[in-house]
Amino acid sequence: MSPQNSAIDAAFAGARVAITGGLGFIGSTLAHRLVRLGSQVTVIDSSLPGSGANPFNLAGIADRVTVVAADIRDAAVLQPHLASCRILFNLAAQTSHQGSMAEPLLDLDVNARAQLALLEACRAVNPEITIVFASTRQIYGRPEYLPVDEKHRIRPVDVNGVDKAAGEAFHLLFHDVYGMRCSALRLTNVYGPRMRIKDARQTFIGVWLRAAVEGRAFELWGGEQLRDLTYVEDAVDAFLLAATTPAVQGQALNIGGDGVVSLRQLAEALVKANDGGDFVVREFPAERKRIDIGDYYADDGRFRQLTGWAPRTTLADGLAQALAFCRAHLPHYL
Amino acid sequence: MSPQNSAIDAAFAGARVAITGGLGFIGSTLAHRLVRLGSQVTVIDSSLPGSGANPFNLAGIADRVTVVAADIRDAAVLQPHLASCRILFNLAAQTSHQGSMAEPLLDLDVNARAQLALLEACRAVNPEITIVFASTRQIYGRPEYLPVDEKHRIRPVDVNGVDKAAGEAFHLLFHDVYGMRCSALRLTNVYGPRMRIKDARQTFIGVWLRAAVEGRAFELWGGEQLRDLTYVEDAVDAFLLAATTPAVQGQALNIGGDGVVSLRQLAEALVKANDGGDFVVREFPAERKRIDIGDYYADDGRFRQLTGWAPRTTLADGLAQALAFCRAHLPHYL
Repeated sequence: MSPQNSAIDAAFAGARVAITGGLGFIGSTLAHRLVRLGSQVTVIDSSLPGSGANPFNLAGIADRVTVVAADIRDAAVLQPHLASCRILFNLAAQTSHQGSMAEPLLDLDVNARAQLALLEACRAVNPEITIVFASTRQIYGRPEYLPVDEKHRIRPVDVNGVDKAAGEAFHLLFHDVYGMRCSALRLTNVYGPRMRIKDARQTFIGVWLRAAVEGRAFELWGGEQLRDLTYVEDAVDAFLLAATTPAVQGQALNIGGDGVVSLRQLAEALVKANDGGDFVVREFPAERKRIDIGDYYADDGRFRQLTGWAPRTTLADGLAQALAFCRAHLPHYL
Repeated sequence: MSPQNSAIDAAFAGARVAITGGLGFIGSTLAHRLVRLGSQVTVIDSSLPGSGANPFNLAGIADRVTVVAADIRDAAVLQPHLASCRILFNLAAQTSHQGSMAEPLLDLDVNARAQLALLEACRAVNPEITIVFASTRQIYGRPEYLPVDEKHRIRPVDVNGVDKAAGEAFHLLFHDVYGMRCSALRLTNVYGPRMRIKDARQTFIGVWLRAAVEGRAFELWGGEQLRDLTYVEDAVDAFLLAATTPAVQGQALNIGGDGVVSLRQLAEALVKANDGGDFVVREFPAERKRIDIGDYYADDGRFRQLTGWAPRTTLADGLAQALAFCRAHLPHYL
């Protein structure tokens, strides 16, 4: 993020920043970066079962961040922590697509209801706060055209997509109606160190990484589907830029990656980055097909144009970093 | 609805039909029609304070419908009533835009969370049921072009719009994922006998009707905004056709009216239909402007094409009917 370095430094040095979902994959990576930038970081996380929350994600910075074990569904508990923050990175979520179909009301409570309560709490105690919400490409459903830009129809294919769309809409609404500094990033598949790998609740990539590191073959379902991927440090860049670029406020913008790959190409890249390994190709399971979105890749030109953001990590480098982290810290992620 | 008469008769004669929000304005008008068609009608209503629920709305058919005093937020209570129904008209809602900003979590619980729970209950006990959901033009927010068709961007201007959009999306999702027979009608301003007139929670028209009948001047805010209006019996036609037209399933379709009027023209038409009365023009109040949508009228060509629906009531006739009902039954609506 070389061009914005000094602006980012100035914005975050000494600033009070809160991160919901801060024990999770992206949230904790953001916490590491913010500690390096000199922010006073408060991590808010309920360690929801099945989420990406992992205390080990803060290893190395645990003594320099405040960790609040609180559920965003309990806005009253959050209120004092929100009152003093300049910036809130709002990443707490139920992220599993299958999980949202099995427990739809839980998904709604976390991804929509709690978001509304959180925004109400911010409005009450700290209306000047800047909030960046982690949204998802899942809200688009099956793409009608590629690349998908922000004008694409919203037609989620699972409960998670409906709830995330509502959570996002509340953020935009609080900007439009109350003038609050809210924005949302519609993330595609994000991967890298600290992601959940014990199951597929944070995408199939986690399961692949684990299998590769453990020397087992992983399963490739189908293989022709197209995806873009964002390396987690590039996603962190995007969050920092969103928080410090006023023109982003009131918008929900796509974040893509460095090019498009088929899942087969991704599998091959992973094997290569791992210096070995294997995968088996399976037919797409029927119960997953119902909520699969087919090909997806983002047109993220609007965000790039407004902020100067661009991914800085190639797929090969990102996969190598993710594998190295997995290998070094495997027991903490099983 | 002359062309469809025989099909509608056959579909509803003897059929078990449930109506959530059945004590309300549109729900009760639907109940009256269904009783005439020979359906076995169950009305489910919690008489939420501020809603359109009014026991008098069932006057004349109270002995021929089953009324269940239950809140759709309590899906377990609804389950036995849903199990035996062929068709569910799902109209229960919190409808006030201002109310949704004052009590956003209540709005979410009724318009989104309860809808999801209701669909889960239907899926569990009666997945063959046909469900028609009352959605709203409010989900579009401020029109980017006119007339607004179903491809228009969803960008609600209030919490009510976000929650209704989620409630609608759940219905479409349960069609797409589980094959359930769900559809949604995006209603514009509906007016007619039995509407709430004691305040503006069911649009300004209720307040106007009351003032006209009571011989007071009503307030016209602005006056140049364009609207389409649907007479309630025409809306009932649309619900019956949606329930009996398989091609509508899985879709959310606009319902408009018989032409477009400015609010000033509407005010003048009301005074004319009332054989007298007056209105004063006021500036649009600031706190309403934040969530006002400006001009709106629907392109409802898709629904007309699929079902043969067309409004049968002119504005002049509809206003005359609404005024006559108000005048005859005023004490029951204050």
